[in-house]
Amino acid sequence: MINIVAKNIVKKEKIEEFKLLAEKLVKESKKEKGCISYDLYEDIDNSNILTFIEEWIGEEAINLHNKSEHFTTIVPKLRELVESGPEINLYKKCK
Amino acid sequence: MINIVAKNIVKKEKIEEFKLLAEKLVKESKKEKGCISYDLYEDIDNSNILTFIEEWIGEEAINLHNKSEHFTTIVPKLRELVESGPEINLYKKCK
Repeated sequence: MINIVAKNIVKKEKIEEFKLLAEKLVKESKKEKGCISYDLYEDIDNSNILTFIEEWIGEEAINLHNKSEHFTTIVPKLRELVESGPEINLYKKCK
Repeated sequence: MINIVAKNIVKKEKIEEFKLLAEKLVKESKKEKGCISYDLYEDIDNSNILTFIEEWIGEEAINLHNKSEHFTTIVPKLRELVESGPEINLYKKCK
């Protein structure tokens, strides 16, 4: 199992646009076979910090996700709406 | 529900010490009533990036956690072992 945290600092005037696009990405990603969970989270103190927290069964599933139509069309659009990021970490749970 | 991501860049020579202390913090925190999940994760590409990913039922539970004996004794020790961090974000899930 691999957990991904992808943190974005979104331009203040682009928050709603980011959320709308992200909603579509979340919906399609959740349909993928190797996806355990995939959601967008908002920082409770800074509404322009928007972070994807994801769980995947393994690296192969993530590689397929990165090549998927929804990923390759939506992610470049999201990157135009950020001040900085995404800051991406792939994690495995410590025993 | 509130999700916490607390990312630490740990001094390379202190990784094992950090993990040992974190193990105790994880174990005790999981016993708290308002804790849904609480685990330590290691970045798959950088073994000195160690991040707590947590789920709590709400702010009150987090306030109690921050005052708990295990938190107030272990967290200051962890902070001595990092190069930078913790970078902490509290999140709510976007609808």
